[in-house]
Amino acid sequence: MIKISEKKIERIINYRRVLLRLDKQMRKTHIFSHQLASNSGASPAQVRRDLMEIGYTGSPAHGYEIKGLLKSIGDFIDPDAKEELALIGLGNLGRAIIDYFNGQSSKLEIVTVFDNNPDKVNRVVAGCRSYHVKDLKEIIRNNNINTAVITVPSSEAQQIADTLVDAGVKGILNYAPIILSVPEGIYVENRDMITTLEKVSYFAKNNNNK
Amino acid sequence: MIKISEKKIERIINYRRVLLRLDKQMRKTHIFSHQLASNSGASPAQVRRDLMEIGYTGSPAHGYEIKGLLKSIGDFIDPDAKEELALIGLGNLGRAIIDYFNGQSSKLEIVTVFDNNPDKVNRVVAGCRSYHVKDLKEIIRNNNINTAVITVPSSEAQQIADTLVDAGVKGILNYAPIILSVPEGIYVENRDMITTLEKVSYFAKNNNNK
Repeated sequence: MIKISEKKIERIINYRRVLLRLDKQMRKTHIFSHQLASNSGASPAQVRRDLMEIGYTGSPAHGYEIKGLLKSIGDFIDPDAKEELALIGLGNLGRAIIDYFNGQSSKLEIVTVFDNNPDKVNRVVAGCRSYHVKDLKEIIRNNNINTAVITVPSSEAQQIADTLVDAGVKGILNYAPIILSVPEGIYVENRDMITTLEKVSYFAKNNNNK
Repeated sequence: MIKISEKKIERIINYRRVLLRLDKQMRKTHIFSHQLASNSGASPAQVRRDLMEIGYTGSPAHGYEIKGLLKSIGDFIDPDAKEELALIGLGNLGRAIIDYFNGQSSKLEIVTVFDNNPDKVNRVVAGCRSYHVKDLKEIIRNNNINTAVITVPSSEAQQIADTLVDAGVKGILNYAPIILSVPEGIYVENRDMITTLEKVSYFAKNNNNK
């Protein structure tokens, strides 16, 4: 398997976001690397290298063909038809994430959700079927779910992560304000808002040149 | 001014999160670097280097004194008494962020919020006073707000960012799924969930060793 860096994957996913927007908004069929670069926070040279790596080349006269490039990126990032994700923790943040996320990604959808509050389970919440966390392991395993989002309080997050890993989950997006400890081979993104906002506020005041 | 990397600031903020939790939960007064490391996803050597840099040293026999260390980190990260933040975009995500965030950070609070929907302005929303975005520049400037959170749709995000920068904002946490373009000296964190979740899903399937 080709080893490819996180930053590069993030850039390629960003290119797709920009291309999808352009494809919808404009009548343009082609885009140049410098245009894609200026819309996605990369350099034109980086854009060309990244797209060459996924096997797509543009023409010097017309640039990249938008629809063809979108297909190449899709084949590279998420070649499978659809992927169903799980979310654990149906508080305000969990519900907002489901509402916000579903329908916006071309291939991913949050379908199965969990909570430990009996009033929130065995229902349809924001279009998703909700279950009790006691059934987490069994349902995740039976549905072959690979990726999950954690939006439970920090006191419960590690235990939920352990159960997810045990059930076969390989990728976790963690919004709880703790650093999860997981075995090697499991991919975790910690997205604690408090840390992030404290960091932004720090750099707003201490204007280091990056 | 000392130039300090983003990663280091993020680690120091994470140490504080871990220390605050330990300070609340346990009767312990001291912590060793390896304990702080294992709870915050850093190496013990990194912890020691980071804390030395902010001018705090532990004792080989007892480790670091938790309350003293918390004070040193606070003096370094946010020496000011309180900081008031603004949020623009009172959809589900914006409200969830306010609810989730306020009360959780020691120094930061979202106080002033904006929307372009007349039904959502001149009210108290999740404890914050809400205003129309047409008054964004004036209110941000009059209140000396340094840091703002953007939760508007992507079609409006760049214009909001331009106005914020114009009004003197130096740090932006952007949840809209576009890469903002800002002048040099302005710090932006793009935290688009769609990109993040697509990335987690990619690495869940393509298990690169990092």
